[in-house]
Amino acid sequence: MGETTIPGYGYGNAAPSPVSVEELGLLKASVLFGPEDEAALRRAGEVLADQVEEILDVWYAFVGANPQLLAEFSTPDGKPITPYLERVRARFGQWIRDTCTRPYDEAWLAYQEEIAERHTPAKKNTADGVASVPYVPLRYLIALIYPITATVRDFLARGDRPAEEVDAMHEAWRKSVIMQVALWSRPYAPDTW
Amino acid sequence: MGETTIPGYGYGNAAPSPVSVEELGLLKASVLFGPEDEAALRRAGEVLADQVEEILDVWYAFVGANPQLLAEFSTPDGKPITPYLERVRARFGQWIRDTCTRPYDEAWLAYQEEIAERHTPAKKNTADGVASVPYVPLRYLIALIYPITATVRDFLARGDRPAEEVDAMHEAWRKSVIMQVALWSRPYAPDTW
Repeated sequence: MGETTIPGYGYGNAAPSPVSVEELGLLKASVLFGPEDEAALRRAGEVLADQVEEILDVWYAFVGANPQLLAEFSTPDGKPITPYLERVRARFGQWIRDTCTRPYDEAWLAYQEEIAERHTPAKKNTADGVASVPYVPLRYLIALIYPITATVRDFLARGDRPAEEVDAMHEAWRKSVIMQVALWSRPYAPDTW
Repeated sequence: MGETTIPGYGYGNAAPSPVSVEELGLLKASVLFGPEDEAALRRAGEVLADQVEEILDVWYAFVGANPQLLAEFSTPDGKPITPYLERVRARFGQWIRDTCTRPYDEAWLAYQEEIAERHTPAKKNTADGVASVPYVPLRYLIALIYPITATVRDFLARGDRPAEEVDAMHEAWRKSVIMQVALWSRPYAPDTW
């Protein structure tokens, strides 16, 4: 699916983030993210490019098996909203590509903030016109760091790269995901973020 | 240092957590934490027991090298408060031991909530009677997942255990730290947690 046909995907059209590039630099330092991680993510993007749907299959199976996670894609009385799951899936796949290939600049920060707000009462459901629950609980946003990072290793290892390079790609992925979840937590606690 | 002489350490004396054991179970499921991780943490506790001060040296060197992190142990105008750093260090060491050896039950949840509140304006500085900044920014609480998990591997690997067992201990450590940060985020966003 091309970027322009992904429902609700608005990279490049988001309002400027309240987070500055300088603040991002401090976050990068806090997760030890450096130029070598950027390079490793570019290589990870090559390895993962043809495996995005398989990765999403793993993640969606995990969400589907965990009612507390499936609830975020469901009506308040607990009925999963299939079109919502599908629209988010397309953006989730693009998020894998963006994580690996985009420069982490103002445009990236702006879209990070858009993603962040879409987890909270400010914008949840609005991009998809659905009547789901009003927010993703912060606890699960943070908890998902584990499955979203641990499950990627097998896919990175399929690229026939040396073990040290798989390690480097995996560590860069971990750092980026943790940093992004930190960015996504902002609208949950704007006064103590 | 024995538990009873650690300044400000109050395991067993904390008020009940608003988080239930049932909610903890859902968090455990969300990070794939199971009985095999509990067992792996017990073994990790044995491997790390004599290395706690060395681990703290690594973590404190990292904090000391990062002004945005050292600020949380400093006066509002940026002067590090040495007695505060030392008192927290003793509790941080005990936290390593608690993470590996305590059952994750009501008493553990109660102390998790106490730790959580000590990062926020509700209780920051109160256990140590210091005049530091009023809260730990949520972004850095989350970001620290990376260094606090990545740096532990070398110490786990010093125990002469097979590589698969080091992996298992490390994954259990990661899951626990991510789960604990999720618990510590509660008072930052009580309405959307």
